[in-house]
Amino acid sequence: MKILVINPNTTASMTDHIGKAALSAASPGTDITAVNPVHGPRSIEGYFDEAMSLAGLLETIHRNPDCDAVVIACFDDTGLDAARCLTDKPVIGIGEAAYHFASMISNKFSVVTTLARSVPALEHNLARYGLIARCARVRSSEVAVLELEQPGSNARQKISAEIGLAVAEDNAEAIVLGCAGMAGLAADLAAEHGLPVLDGVTCAVKLAEAMAGLGMRTSRLGGYAPPPAEKLKHIFPAG
Amino acid sequence: MKILVINPNTTASMTDHIGKAALSAASPGTDITAVNPVHGPRSIEGYFDEAMSLAGLLETIHRNPDCDAVVIACFDDTGLDAARCLTDKPVIGIGEAAYHFASMISNKFSVVTTLARSVPALEHNLARYGLIARCARVRSSEVAVLELEQPGSNARQKISAEIGLAVAEDNAEAIVLGCAGMAGLAADLAAEHGLPVLDGVTCAVKLAEAMAGLGMRTSRLGGYAPPPAEKLKHIFPAG
Amino acid sequence: MKILVINPNTTASMTDHIGKAALSAASPGTDITAVNPVHGPRSIEGYFDEAMSLAGLLETIHRNPDCDAVVIACFDDTGLDAARCLTDKPVIGIGEAAYHFASMISNKFSVVTTLARSVPALEHNLARYGLIARCARVRSSEVAVLELEQPGSNARQKISAEIGLAVAEDNAEAIVLGCAGMAGLAADLAAEHGLPVLDGVTCAVKLAEAMAGLGMRTSRLGGYAPPPAEKLKHIFPAG
Amino acid sequence: MKILVINPNTTASMTDHIGKAALSAASPGTDITAVNPVHGPRSIEGYFDEAMSLAGLLETIHRNPDCDAVVIACFDDTGLDAARCLTDKPVIGIGEAAYHFASMISNKFSVVTTLARSVPALEHNLARYGLIARCARVRSSEVAVLELEQPGSNARQKISAEIGLAVAEDNAEAIVLGCAGMAGLAADLAAEHGLPVLDGVTCAVKLAEAMAGLGMRTSRLGGYAPPPAEKLKHIFPAG
Amino acid sequence: MKILVINPNTTASMTDHIGKAALSAASPGTDITAVNPVHGPRSIEGYFDEAMSLAGLLETIHRNPDCDAVVIACFDDTGLDAARCLTDKPVIGIGEAAYHFASMISNKFSVVTTLARSVPALEHNLARYGLIARCARVRSSEVAVLELEQPGSNARQKISAEIGLAVAEDNAEAIVLGCAGMAGLAADLAAEHGLPVLDGVTCAVKLAEAMAGLGMRTSRLGGYAPPPAEKLKHIFPAG
Amino acid sequence: MKILVINPNTTASMTDHIGKAALSAASPGTDITAVNPVHGPRSIEGYFDEAMSLAGLLETIHRNPDCDAVVIACFDDTGLDAARCLTDKPVIGIGEAAYHFASMISNKFSVVTTLARSVPALEHNLARYGLIARCARVRSSEVAVLELEQPGSNARQKISAEIGLAVAEDNAEAIVLGCAGMAGLAADLAAEHGLPVLDGVTCAVKLAEAMAGLGMRTSRLGGYAPPPAEKLKHIFPAG
Repeated sequence: MKILVINPNTTASMTDHIGKAALSAASPGTDITAVNPVHGPRSIEGYFDEAMSLAGLLETIHRNPDCDAVVIACFDDTGLDAARCLTDKPVIGIGEAAYHFASMISNKFSVVTTLARSVPALEHNLARYGLIARCARVRSSEVAVLELEQPGSNARQKISAEIGLAVAEDNAEAIVLGCAGMAGLAADLAAEHGLPVLDGVTCAVKLAEAMAGLGMRTSRLGGYAPPPAEKLKHIFPAG
Repeated sequence: MKILVINPNTTASMTDHIGKAALSAASPGTDITAVNPVHGPRSIEGYFDEAMSLAGLLETIHRNPDCDAVVIACFDDTGLDAARCLTDKPVIGIGEAAYHFASMISNKFSVVTTLARSVPALEHNLARYGLIARCARVRSSEVAVLELEQPGSNARQKISAEIGLAVAEDNAEAIVLGCAGMAGLAADLAAEHGLPVLDGVTCAVKLAEAMAGLGMRTSRLGGYAPPPAEKLKHIFPAG
Repeated sequence: MKILVINPNTTASMTDHIGKAALSAASPGTDITAVNPVHGPRSIEGYFDEAMSLAGLLETIHRNPDCDAVVIACFDDTGLDAARCLTDKPVIGIGEAAYHFASMISNKFSVVTTLARSVPALEHNLARYGLIARCARVRSSEVAVLELEQPGSNARQKISAEIGLAVAEDNAEAIVLGCAGMAGLAADLAAEHGLPVLDGVTCAVKLAEAMAGLGMRTSRLGGYAPPPAEKLKHIFPAG
Repeated sequence: MKILVINPNTTASMTDHIGKAALSAASPGTDITAVNPVHGPRSIEGYFDEAMSLAGLLETIHRNPDCDAVVIACFDDTGLDAARCLTDKPVIGIGEAAYHFASMISNKFSVVTTLARSVPALEHNLARYGLIARCARVRSSEVAVLELEQPGSNARQKISAEIGLAVAEDNAEAIVLGCAGMAGLAADLAAEHGLPVLDGVTCAVKLAEAMAGLGMRTSRLGGYAPPPAEKLKHIFPAG
Repeated sequence: MKILVINPNTTASMTDHIGKAALSAASPGTDITAVNPVHGPRSIEGYFDEAMSLAGLLETIHRNPDCDAVVIACFDDTGLDAARCLTDKPVIGIGEAAYHFASMISNKFSVVTTLARSVPALEHNLARYGLIARCARVRSSEVAVLELEQPGSNARQKISAEIGLAVAEDNAEAIVLGCAGMAGLAADLAAEHGLPVLDGVTCAVKLAEAMAGLGMRTSRLGGYAPPPAEKLKHIFPAG
Repeated sequence: MKILVINPNTTASMTDHIGKAALSAASPGTDITAVNPVHGPRSIEGYFDEAMSLAGLLETIHRNPDCDAVVIACFDDTGLDAARCLTDKPVIGIGEAAYHFASMISNKFSVVTTLARSVPALEHNLARYGLIARCARVRSSEVAVLELEQPGSNARQKISAEIGLAVAEDNAEAIVLGCAGMAGLAADLAAEHGLPVLDGVTCAVKLAEAMAGLGMRTSRLGGYAPPPAEKLKHIFPAG
């Protein structure tokens, strides 16, 4: 099975980091290809970055048809709906994946994300998926995405402090880490705080395996109907 | 990996049927044990049957600690919350599993279940999971659970007719089959109607593999806190 | 008029306590029978206890057909839906009763219950009844159910402190006491805090009188349709 | 016990009709006083009539302090919130009363009211009480309020037809009659259609007895805080 | 264009204040007529005052048909629905106007109003308009309406303090001032706190110009159907 | 005042059409500039087209800073959130504008849009704005966007038929036309069906004038915080 894992920002070191996390969760026999677009924002922090990464993200999916499932490895689930029009292979966002799993192992979870500017987009997604009823609160740790890549930053500390508050103030029973770049921290933080801490990258890889394993395809009726062939050719001219 | 699949009703032929469906979805290396309680209702159709199957269902989980995940193979997701208190292994209901997957391959799905008396319990679950926003309608086909086991019944026909209505009237983009006993019909109905048709048993097995594969555990904080040991001993005396 | 008041746990002293509270609210001419099942959990604190008390609770209803209404005297409203399938006499949960009344004398109320593990089940009920919009917050006092029976515990103090917080932080205009065992404390706490404090047992008795007085019956259509006679005979064999 | 039943419109024959229905539900020892304001609309059909009946309704409450509970006998629950500021005796709207009871004997109910212009106000109330989740649909029968008073009108027929549709199309398990003037029709329509049919007047009387019997008072904190004495004196000058 | 701005309370100095604010927002060519009823409450603080101001408010609209739009200049949007039955000219409440604009320049706003007793009515309106999802919190500053008119009161200080809390605790991105009497404070508070601060009077005037400019009329179908002519004549006899 | 009206698709004839509609609603002294991106989809029908139009849309806003407000003239409100990060001038979507106005002249409205594939995106927006509670139904007329430009198509007829159904089946009190290309049809359809029919382009122009007239700015706190200057320079290099 081949899973295409797309980091929609253009920071290659983050793509490597995500690829490794994805591989760590993959079953034997699952092939992970982690890629990122060439053009677009270096990090995705809020609505504007999301919007400007879409063309690169979607073209990456279009140019890589040879896969069994697609993972969008940005916690905003950037372009999820558009991607589902473009291919009928399962497309899974890492935010979505973590929310679905968290709602099956806890009554209520909190999300700990990067910057305050990202919070409304995540709340918006949760409402759209229906899972906002299961989310106690979306918290920002005021850690910038690329800070997570810097050795010596106190990112882990800030995130841990926010988890402590989520347990004390929100009665959160589980934590979802709200950024692809936090992929490596989950196990350690779970041990420290004594509750499940979910990372979206590993969750999404496992969901992708599950859905591809069942032969599931995205519906072609209604909102995910594929764009007409000529429109597609106009948008992504061959070459 | 060992998955305990529990049919909470006492009809052994249905347990066999469910076990086969589960096995068909299992990855190589996954061991499926399909069981049912000895005492309790022969079919689960509505609130009363659900309630009366709980003691048997929970005792079955208690007596089978040697597994990596538990699937509750009744579409009402009977006893899901209670089971999550009893074990920290992932516990997945087949209704829940199908709803989560359906919401990732369609904007809106409809459920086709057995009798009208089961509809409110399913709507209640959907609301509780948060996924009712993604469900266009829960429809009854007026097929009794055990009728699904009878060769020569026109169960398949009634279900297919109801799927037709779901597409025409609800603008459903995918269909969830609302009974464990419908497990074998999904592929065929999907082909007939040209949209994804999900069966909860196979969905739940794949989710169980995914969650156990990630080493996920149900939270022990808050609502799923385990009962104190002495209470457990009082309820399930050894022997 | 005869009202069957069922304490679904097996602690007889608590049943006495509940019976006295019920009697204090009953009109002249109303006969209160307070009973508890023989087998099952000694207290109901969370989902698991709820589930394990259901068989005893429902059998108690089945064996006591000679009544005009049934009160389920556990604040989780254990087995309410199943009970409504089993009899068409009005069945009222004490949680439900208190919520309905509280919503008619305040814009917003808070609930003060026992342990944190019970909170999600109560929130779930409130959502199901629709009344969560009227509930500011469900608070736990960290008083165990049986502690309420112990003279010398500081249960009352903890509950009062939590009521103070509900007024200050939640802008609660009324308080609902979230456990049948708190039945005796309402009047005193209301005087202390200067707002209505509702106890579910007395509320439910009055609702039961009102509904039986109007000759109301639970609907037999849809979700509360009675189980077929042969199923009932199989589940509750005569004797 | 004294219950003040106020018909907020000025049609005395309707007040008589309502008074008789109220009396039929009252317990021995309950005294019913049915009154209506002298000035204001002759029937209440929609937002404008509601608004213009408020001054008369509230003055009636102010001039009749000698009662144990107040029933507002218009299905729009006209002025309910304002009335609760004016007195701390329980104030119950007949719409509200019927909705609360209906939600305890059915999973879902439909309302059959008079004119289409009244539907949004009722939906608004249901949403406000939280009970819209339990209401399948508010239906108009296109019977004007005062037509209900006219012998020989085909009002009963139109209402019955609408109940038939509510069962067939909405899967309603119970029916709420949406006008005080329908008070006498409930028993007969229930027998005809085989499901509970609730009339708000009798429901409200029983709720009033229950609440007054428990000594319940409306909260004086927050939204129902009483107007300052001098404001009251300015609005309702003595005499 | 003529806009009728009605202050539904009877305090003429406040009407002047509102009229000036309205004029400050009006386009050249827009004529503002600010009026108040002769009879009714001197300030509107909560449900009772709202109810008692309705007759005066509606009569004022009825007696002033020569206008292109109506603004109801009380933040409770007193009588909005009834007014829309009475005229098909656009009728805009100042609360409503501010909420709609705030939801187009922020993800989430908080409201800072006068007294705690007014909070539930505002929450109720927000829910009814659908915009409660966009409101982080309705806060009371414990400033009485008429205190806003008194030079030397520390009203501004209390309001500013509450805005500070809204930013810190609610993550509010914009503030809506919850009283017509706060009309003059918005610009100054916006500068102080560095976020948009909206005043309903100016918002409503601009919305009224926009709607009248487009020739919009309130629907005459359904809930806003006009009262029959004879009913109107009975309620507002000529003279 | 200068309003930048952006048609996010690349069909210039449609931009002309939109520009004319915008001009027809503009006040004297308002300057309308109607533009479209050079690259991107020729029509926007569903999630994929929306996503692929974003880069062009946002660059257009970036390159045209000299305006007082921006109107996004696609009924999906394409890129609304991202645009609000890019400029603090008011940005108004035509869908949003029509929904807000419709909710102030009716209790409930229905939307009549182009193709079924666009329906979920509109429902999603309505939920996000909070206004879904006011929308009875989103209907597709199965008229493609560019068909609206073709003389001789039966587009008007199909749209009119759908409006008829909205009145009869949804009890809609007003209609919102769900495509920028329908701008010219509103007045005529309103006359035909006897209820308000709103076109988003004219609504948005008037809202833009109102907001710019008030000097309103989009909040710079939280979700609409502007991207850092260097990120902006990287995305839109000078030239």
